Amino acid sequence: MIRIAMLGSGRVGQVHAASIASQAGAELALVVDPIEAAASALGAKYGVKYSLDVQDAFEDASIDAVVVGTPTNTHTEMLERAVAAGKKVLLEKPIDLDLARIDATWARIADKAPFVMLGFNRRFDPSFREVRERVAKGEIGVLRAARITSRDPQPPPAAYLAVSGGMFKDMTIHDFDMARFQAGDIVEVSAMVSTNGLEAFEQAKDHAQAIVTMRAASGALVTIVNSRSCAYGYDQRLEAFGDAGSLEAGNWTATTVRAASATQTEAAGPILNFFLERYMPAFKNEMAEFIAAINEDRAPAVGFADGRAALLLAEAAQRSVQTGSVVKL
Amino acid sequence: MIRIAMLGSGRVGQVHAASIASQAGAELALVVDPIEAAASALGAKYGVKYSLDVQDAFEDASIDAVVVGTPTNTHTEMLERAVAAGKKVLLEKPIDLDLARIDATWARIADKAPFVMLGFNRRFDPSFREVRERVAKGEIGVLRAARITSRDPQPPPAAYLAVSGGMFKDMTIHDFDMARFQAGDIVEVSAMVSTNGLEAFEQAKDHAQAIVTMRAASGALVTIVNSRSCAYGYDQRLEAFGDAGSLEAGNWTATTVRAASATQTEAAGPILNFFLERYMPAFKNEMAEFIAAINEDRAPAVGFADGRAALLLAEAAQRSVQTGSVVKL
Amino acid sequence: MIRIAMLGSGRVGQVHAASIASQAGAELALVVDPIEAAASALGAKYGVKYSLDVQDAFEDASIDAVVVGTPTNTHTEMLERAVAAGKKVLLEKPIDLDLARIDATWARIADKAPFVMLGFNRRFDPSFREVRERVAKGEIGVLRAARITSRDPQPPPAAYLAVSGGMFKDMTIHDFDMARFQAGDIVEVSAMVSTNGLEAFEQAKDHAQAIVTMRAASGALVTIVNSRSCAYGYDQRLEAFGDAGSLEAGNWTATTVRAASATQTEAAGPILNFFLERYMPAFKNEMAEFIAAINEDRAPAVGFADGRAALLLAEAAQRSVQTGSVVKL
Amino acid sequence: MIRIAMLGSGRVGQVHAASIASQAGAELALVVDPIEAAASALGAKYGVKYSLDVQDAFEDASIDAVVVGTPTNTHTEMLERAVAAGKKVLLEKPIDLDLARIDATWARIADKAPFVMLGFNRRFDPSFREVRERVAKGEIGVLRAARITSRDPQPPPAAYLAVSGGMFKDMTIHDFDMARFQAGDIVEVSAMVSTNGLEAFEQAKDHAQAIVTMRAASGALVTIVNSRSCAYGYDQRLEAFGDAGSLEAGNWTATTVRAASATQTEAAGPILNFFLERYMPAFKNEMAEFIAAINEDRAPAVGFADGRAALLLAEAAQRSVQTGSVVKL
Repeated sequence: MIRIAMLGSGRVGQVHAASIASQAGAELALVVDPIEAAASALGAKYGVKYSLDVQDAFEDASIDAVVVGTPTNTHTEMLERAVAAGKKVLLEKPIDLDLARIDATWARIADKAPFVMLGFNRRFDPSFREVRERVAKGEIGVLRAARITSRDPQPPPAAYLAVSGGMFKDMTIHDFDMARFQAGDIVEVSAMVSTNGLEAFEQAKDHAQAIVTMRAASGALVTIVNSRSCAYGYDQRLEAFGDAGSLEAGNWTATTVRAASATQTEAAGPILNFFLERYMPAFKNEMAEFIAAINEDRAPAVGFADGRAALLLAEAAQRSVQTGSVVKL
Repeated sequence: MIRIAMLGSGRVGQVHAASIASQAGAELALVVDPIEAAASALGAKYGVKYSLDVQDAFEDASIDAVVVGTPTNTHTEMLERAVAAGKKVLLEKPIDLDLARIDATWARIADKAPFVMLGFNRRFDPSFREVRERVAKGEIGVLRAARITSRDPQPPPAAYLAVSGGMFKDMTIHDFDMARFQAGDIVEVSAMVSTNGLEAFEQAKDHAQAIVTMRAASGALVTIVNSRSCAYGYDQRLEAFGDAGSLEAGNWTATTVRAASATQTEAAGPILNFFLERYMPAFKNEMAEFIAAINEDRAPAVGFADGRAALLLAEAAQRSVQTGSVVKL
Repeated sequence: MIRIAMLGSGRVGQVHAASIASQAGAELALVVDPIEAAASALGAKYGVKYSLDVQDAFEDASIDAVVVGTPTNTHTEMLERAVAAGKKVLLEKPIDLDLARIDATWARIADKAPFVMLGFNRRFDPSFREVRERVAKGEIGVLRAARITSRDPQPPPAAYLAVSGGMFKDMTIHDFDMARFQAGDIVEVSAMVSTNGLEAFEQAKDHAQAIVTMRAASGALVTIVNSRSCAYGYDQRLEAFGDAGSLEAGNWTATTVRAASATQTEAAGPILNFFLERYMPAFKNEMAEFIAAINEDRAPAVGFADGRAALLLAEAAQRSVQTGSVVKL
Repeated sequence: MIRIAMLGSGRVGQVHAASIASQAGAELALVVDPIEAAASALGAKYGVKYSLDVQDAFEDASIDAVVVGTPTNTHTEMLERAVAAGKKVLLEKPIDLDLARIDATWARIADKAPFVMLGFNRRFDPSFREVRERVAKGEIGVLRAARITSRDPQPPPAAYLAVSGGMFKDMTIHDFDMARFQAGDIVEVSAMVSTNGLEAFEQAKDHAQAIVTMRAASGALVTIVNSRSCAYGYDQRLEAFGDAGSLEAGNWTATTVRAASATQTEAAGPILNFFLERYMPAFKNEMAEFIAAINEDRAPAVGFADGRAALLLAEAAQRSVQTGSVVKL
């Protein structure tokens, strides 16, 4: 039985706790959060202890692994301390907003053969994964283009915008990883953005929507279509286009009901909204991979280098916006 | 060039005239209708003569064929005169409302090797035809069940209801033929009907909706789902279910546009409405078959016997309603 | 905390145990099965005791409720004993294969104000439930017709066929309940069946497929389309047709992936197969209703009378097959 | 009756001739093509005269209008001569491959108040048009993004590639016009392309696929996804995304048949292939607009300036490819 401590009991911490509870072969051992009400509530829900201090997780020899769901600016510290304590780590994205800090962290932990899995949960979404696997099996021939549609239902609050690191590092980071997951290494990045004329984004010097075009080392072209708001919900789609055909992964609705009336036909309900609903199976599969990799004593399917690479793409996209030019990597 | 006279210039006459005009190798030669305004208007549209008397069509040696789109109660007379005059005939359904008259007509024309094609246009609908052909090729293995959904957008006026011969002979007649087209000869018929509590149908002793279940000689079960009204338009669908899979033909919309909003997603527009729009390709293909059969000097794909068989099923369904029992044929 | 004993640890017992485990406010207290290996395995999975004797469940005062998932021919005995012991009961369908036994059982328990919920899980399927609710809200006007498509992926083994009670009581029983759920009380039943010429069904005097047509007291017509086998999986669909439109609930696929190739487009994957996959959310919702009704001290949404009514329809359908006539209730 | 001469009897000439024939209020008056076999065949098909010399069209006072479907490098000459002769002109795209020639031509004809409609037939596609109209009516709020998917089934022969003017001017030109039709004037263009490693495209210094991203003056971002080949046919789709929702126009299949088998479900047939099939309704609507504008003595819906603007975008996209930078207009 792998015993896991959950660091952070916010939204994503609650998701991971539920995922751990659903896994045979693993159990939640401790919940840590400096906010006692949050820590105790999540601990109580699963009948486990809580603590206000992460050191309790690192010092507990019965704990095998930690899931880091603390604020982004604490990620590298948590990672370093966890590795030093000999814990396996599932680290939420992004590793950090600053590439230099990321590299410094890695320099400090690299010789400890750290077990670090990055929380790019979408790689474990059954539909996106199926696309990847069918492409890998050659069903559509050589992959020529991939298209990622990723729109959030509504923008984060202005306070969050100010510290988010910007759309590319905060939201598109998932799509950059998906681009790499589907098409492999990326060698060129170009981006065009808009604030939609909204003051919140202009003040934050951030983007309300973006189109990012990339060239993969394989030659495939990848497009990301982003929007910080979407009236019909959390739009998460993927198209892989190859010489022999295409594969498209669409959105999920809560039921299969379709309505016909005097004015329209085949109307489906709203799509699943938001990431907790849409990606719950992905979060569970992600946790299963974390546990399986630990049990099988192997590297997890997505690692520190993937987290770094996604951030690199986010920075390249931002640079392309500033220079108006393609950025080569 | 096959020269064709159109008998009757009502709605279906106009459709056939347009179909003739679209065919290479055939031309409209004459329009006949006792209502001069109607006859002359349709004649003028295609730049051909018109007449108030069908005898002009039968006596004109330059005319090869006639399309009979006159009122149902004149069909057998038109057919007999046309055959007597040596004309090929495309006869609108139903042949007649009375089986005895149908048989008497046939007795009088049978020895003349008449060329009679029945206007079951839906057999020529590209989607229904594709289902038939793929089933025939064995794609879904042995056909076990077929389901025909056929709903008119709105009921005919009360005056028409009174003389229509009843829903089964007037509307379901197409579906009975489709049942035979898809599943072959029918040996048992059972029907359940409803007036939806509407006075118009109760006074006419007619049905607002019906479910007809049949057994084919092959063993396949066939269901017809009918309604005299349908809020979302002219609902025309088909399912063929076999040991190895199924084939379903759905409705058409005018465009491919799908809408998503805060309350729903993938909403398509209204379906094509009514039979002129939905079955225009079928009418053209039907005319092409009529012309091809004439040119190739062979029997047309759907003949007098098919018209009689459909009426037999209509009568059986009505008898089943009256007796509450399965009617065996 | 409501404590529940699971009587029977077969396939459906395992489903219910999982459902109980997923509910806050309830816990599995005991697993009973005369086959020790089965009982102990399920008990171990959820860390609870097991017993070989149902009496242990009935005698345990700490147990509030039992879920009866034992063989059909023990249902009435289990129900009577459970009620006598003051337990709330969730009883799997059918109550019994014999109407006289059902009524005798009721006569013996009726004065004890028994809490009995019937396991018609499909009423709790989110899609079918949404259809019911939207119809009830008037979205499609007066309901005129309902159509239930229900096809099992493959027939049960011959040994099971011999004791199943026949397709109508064994398989269609769910659809009869769905008919009542969607359209209310049924007053007429007509059925047509086929063995598909297969010896297994002919020997068992059972049906490989069936079309059942019913009239509801409301006037709505309801059609059930059944097949004991379906190449493309567990086909579970519903159409509700009303004066103002229609609502259709379709099948689920495991992912949203659609493929296009040189020969076809928009090809989805296989549909969820079999009932464990398709109806797991329904089983969970069913258990939630069981627990909620207990907590709120009210009758559950589906009760003993519903179980009896469905069996009555099954018998009527069988009688219609034998007589070739509509059976009035 | 508007009398129209068809200049050029190649593939697009045949389409226009058919469109003219389908219009009330217009007739084909003359077919011109230097290849006599082609000219006479098309003339014979519609029973009209033919000529080898365009001058015959310009000199014939009974001819009101000409449709220019001659090779691209003759377009400006044809246009100038037609305008000089007082004919209304429907000119196939592109006006020319050279902007300087386009402007010189305009300078020579501008003072004659020329009636010139550009053959951007896709503006008249019912689905794309419906999207435009519903967006204009405000159904999806402010338009924030548009996405045009446009893939040809297979690349043109190498000989054609050499003289085509390049993918942007030859193929994407339609999409540039669609971008302007849906989103209005474009102010920034960025493009990324690939030869897919194919020699034919490398030798022609042309592109096998391209992603073009543009900013409209309105602020909307527009993406064009192009491929010179597509295994599943002629992929022609559009998405308009706005503050209140989205509208998507998809591909057409020849029938509505959907197949289910042991391995997949809801598989549709191939999409309509190629532009003659896909855009025949658009070609007819285009001709109807040409005739209506003539009859109503008003400017046609799409004019010379639109042809020039699309070419400007094609050049900007090519420049973006060469410089790796966004091109501002």
